[in-house]
Amino acid sequence: MLSLQTRVYDDEALTYDGAQLAPHFLYRRFELMGDALVAFAGPADVALDHMVDLEDVKKKAPIASDRMLHFLGEWFIDSLDQGILLQHLFVGGIYECLLERGIRALRRRGNDIYFDDRKVSVSIATKSPVSVLMHSAVNIENTGAPIPVAGLAEMGVEPWSFAREVLERFQRDCAVWRNARVKVLPR
Amino acid sequence: MLSLQTRVYDDEALTYDGAQLAPHFLYRRFELMGDALVAFAGPADVALDHMVDLEDVKKKAPIASDRMLHFLGEWFIDSLDQGILLQHLFVGGIYECLLERGIRALRRRGNDIYFDDRKVSVSIATKSPVSVLMHSAVNIENTGAPIPVAGLAEMGVEPWSFAREVLERFQRDCAVWRNARVKVLPR
Amino acid sequence: MLSLQTRVYDDEALTYDGAQLAPHFLYRRFELMGDALVAFAGPADVALDHMVDLEDVKKKAPIASDRMLHFLGEWFIDSLDQGILLQHLFVGGIYECLLERGIRALRRRGNDIYFDDRKVSVSIATKSPVSVLMHSAVNIENTGAPIPVAGLAEMGVEPWSFAREVLERFQRDCAVWRNARVKVLPR
Amino acid sequence: MLSLQTRVYDDEALTYDGAQLAPHFLYRRFELMGDALVAFAGPADVALDHMVDLEDVKKKAPIASDRMLHFLGEWFIDSLDQGILLQHLFVGGIYECLLERGIRALRRRGNDIYFDDRKVSVSIATKSPVSVLMHSAVNIENTGAPIPVAGLAEMGVEPWSFAREVLERFQRDCAVWRNARVKVLPR
Amino acid sequence: MLSLQTRVYDDEALTYDGAQLAPHFLYRRFELMGDALVAFAGPADVALDHMVDLEDVKKKAPIASDRMLHFLGEWFIDSLDQGILLQHLFVGGIYECLLERGIRALRRRGNDIYFDDRKVSVSIATKSPVSVLMHSAVNIENTGAPIPVAGLAEMGVEPWSFAREVLERFQRDCAVWRNARVKVLPR
Amino acid sequence: MLSLQTRVYDDEALTYDGAQLAPHFLYRRFELMGDALVAFAGPADVALDHMVDLEDVKKKAPIASDRMLHFLGEWFIDSLDQGILLQHLFVGGIYECLLERGIRALRRRGNDIYFDDRKVSVSIATKSPVSVLMHSAVNIENTGAPIPVAGLAEMGVEPWSFAREVLERFQRDCAVWRNARVKVLPR
Repeated sequence: MLSLQTRVYDDEALTYDGAQLAPHFLYRRFELMGDALVAFAGPADVALDHMVDLEDVKKKAPIASDRMLHFLGEWFIDSLDQGILLQHLFVGGIYECLLERGIRALRRRGNDIYFDDRKVSVSIATKSPVSVLMHSAVNIENTGAPIPVAGLAEMGVEPWSFAREVLERFQRDCAVWRNARVKVLPR
Repeated sequence: MLSLQTRVYDDEALTYDGAQLAPHFLYRRFELMGDALVAFAGPADVALDHMVDLEDVKKKAPIASDRMLHFLGEWFIDSLDQGILLQHLFVGGIYECLLERGIRALRRRGNDIYFDDRKVSVSIATKSPVSVLMHSAVNIENTGAPIPVAGLAEMGVEPWSFAREVLERFQRDCAVWRNARVKVLPR
Repeated sequence: MLSLQTRVYDDEALTYDGAQLAPHFLYRRFELMGDALVAFAGPADVALDHMVDLEDVKKKAPIASDRMLHFLGEWFIDSLDQGILLQHLFVGGIYECLLERGIRALRRRGNDIYFDDRKVSVSIATKSPVSVLMHSAVNIENTGAPIPVAGLAEMGVEPWSFAREVLERFQRDCAVWRNARVKVLPR
Repeated sequence: MLSLQTRVYDDEALTYDGAQLAPHFLYRRFELMGDALVAFAGPADVALDHMVDLEDVKKKAPIASDRMLHFLGEWFIDSLDQGILLQHLFVGGIYECLLERGIRALRRRGNDIYFDDRKVSVSIATKSPVSVLMHSAVNIENTGAPIPVAGLAEMGVEPWSFAREVLERFQRDCAVWRNARVKVLPR
Repeated sequence: MLSLQTRVYDDEALTYDGAQLAPHFLYRRFELMGDALVAFAGPADVALDHMVDLEDVKKKAPIASDRMLHFLGEWFIDSLDQGILLQHLFVGGIYECLLERGIRALRRRGNDIYFDDRKVSVSIATKSPVSVLMHSAVNIENTGAPIPVAGLAEMGVEPWSFAREVLERFQRDCAVWRNARVKVLPR
Repeated sequence: MLSLQTRVYDDEALTYDGAQLAPHFLYRRFELMGDALVAFAGPADVALDHMVDLEDVKKKAPIASDRMLHFLGEWFIDSLDQGILLQHLFVGGIYECLLERGIRALRRRGNDIYFDDRKVSVSIATKSPVSVLMHSAVNIENTGAPIPVAGLAEMGVEPWSFAREVLERFQRDCAVWRNARVKVLPR
């Protein structure tokens, strides 16, 4: 649980097609070395052969959306178990940020967030030989998906201030977890 | 991340004085062997020499409350880092359950939940030689504490249905995390 | 050490050619998600470029047999060391099941079982990025191998009841190991 | 999985009362530094407050026997899970050594070995802050126990040659496991 | 490998008697929370029952010196193996700092540094339930020890500038190790 | 931290082009099975697509030298963190061996050694699915590199006796680390 760099890239659209879920992508593309978590926006268009969720692959359920707020993270840790817990803490933070705005009709099932019974988010964590990788994204628009989805726009949520709030919350929570590790007496 | 047993003991009051945060307490007291998480209610009265949060020990800030809903958990894992993430996922679940009821004026800072700027919860995770232990508790009444606190009663939340909802949510999430581990393709 | 699913597929012959020793094969082929161990029967025909035992590769010793009882397992754990111990516990269980039937002239050297000085079994455990994989097999017939081998048939052992006994023993032992982990006091 | 030192102390009787299951006992008593496994013989007399099996403690089932062949081991590893697997591999080896002598009416349930439905062995593995500790013992005589037990004497097994065979087998298997770790290609 | 805090306490003498090698000592005494490494000076006087090197305990070789430069560190990691490597990297840094000053007749054997065949340093790393602890010290004066020792004074080395150089070197190396972890492609 | 095999191959020139940094290369080429560290001499000529240091890849800084003393190691451990510490201990040993010969104008920055402000060494550690791999090399001649370098020849250091000294020192230190692990009392 090293300190985490966060960045918001709000000045250009980037398509997420699954190839970005690769070790050192954040370094190659954004010069970020080490544990990092970034936000950007753009279409999602993940073909089956780039998908890593084997259930979705088996169901032939590709991921597509006209415009999503993407969060892409890499932690240089060995444990996928720990990476999955970090992923769910991150998704929990997204859900909290929506709930705190007083939006009703929200529901979370595992790492899937629903608004008005339509899916708002996708999320996956996987392992590379040197790191754990995470992609989590929430729809901005509710178009372009193979199933009925909901987006931030219809909830009245401005994407970039939302992105900043989510990243700040997670970074602050990371500091709390680190601190919790070093201040506790054993039993 | 073994499967987790949960229990609600709503038929008797139990005081939490810190001695319960011990390996195999859940087995000795409740015959629960293995990873388990239980809820019970009663006063909190933790003297400084039973406290494990070193910051609180240094600040001489004991924990006391006339009536709390206590959650006590033990995971037989080696990693305190992972245990702390589980703790924060659990506290996040408590916070979500309150937010979903439409209660306003709630705030979370790390693993502390506030209502109307008064503290609602305490939480700690620590390590024993064979396990990770967690105590998380929310005030039912807002009396008996050394600082201004808020409780479930004034929020209109019935403790036992709340306890069941929190435990069920966490157990369901645990199953999601296990599943996430085994269904993902590496990169 | 999660709970383990076991299955016996006695209704069709399947050739083992080494390609089956792959992450998520049990999910793709048999819909088994998570830690699992299955038995099936069929020829073994592993060419050198599908072999993972580097000593055998160097000695150019391919694996072939006209009919074997195959056991194929996957554990979603990170430690190959632990996976190798599970493999040897499994092979030990096979050996015990044979010894308990009163068969004489049996011998075990590491994970190789011999009957009448002819080889009965092959076994390997290796690592994928997300799991540990194991293949263990015992000859049913003693034909089709590049070296003198012995098989269950000449020992008078019916393959499917044997497969079920081996898997049940291992599953029961897994439960014992899990229980041993959670019931012991530290020193 | 470091290389393991083994020793047989057949020249004096030593009582096992549970205090021997302590880190560095083998160094303090026998000058053995590092991973080691020794055999000695003598009474077993473990009072409840020296027992580490919490189930036995709860059942108030102390361990006693007039004369046992004791095996005491220490591995300087961090993982109790791995230590428990090593324990069961060791007990499996004891069972094999008995079966291979053609003794009938033997049965193994987890790490308990029975002869003629009477218990032959006890075994436990636990964790110290720096190591995993194991005690496994088989009765030599069948007297002095609180339950009906069987011993090596009535099976016609000479204890010291048996002890040497068990230790040699385990040491040889350890070498096989180490070798298996370093010779396998990943998938 | 979190970022490491370092401090030099050059304004008061502190006796090292072994009790300082305890989890959270740096927090209790110096308000340093988290991974930290500090330097101070004072006598060393470690009685046998405070010693953690079992070889020294067995040889009844207590540690004493009239004035040493002490380095005391705590890393909140689980692996004693890794802690011992950090210890030896630290002692290697001390040795380099001496060699780079052109001092001849220096020798290192493991973590013992000798000048003119007299011992200059002591060092130990051990494990607490939550951390790895290290004490390394070099004599300033060469008096007060039970064996012939050498000290910084007779080598013409000013202790505090030396302490700062050693700590800066180690902190810089820690950053290099962290960086090495995150910039390397797997094979 | 298993025991380490070392070898010096001083009878033939071998070019290091990066392909040697592969799991089991030492077994395939030199029949060394298990943890091993070897020395050989020859040109270095690593094209960008064989480099694993991502910073160098990004800077397009290939590695080349007319003649280097190469050290190639493989440890069958899971932790890259631990592998990087072993790498730096090894490079520290090289630096010590140079300093102890009384060579002045030497400097170390992380794992880079400089003589007279010219680079003497390269070093990298990376992870394979089954092991940690290390390549460290020091120039013998100072020709053939894309930047100004220094070599053992101009320092008056005979390569093979130097190689033997470096390997012996590291092997002896490995034994010290192993011993440190097993002789220390916990706190």
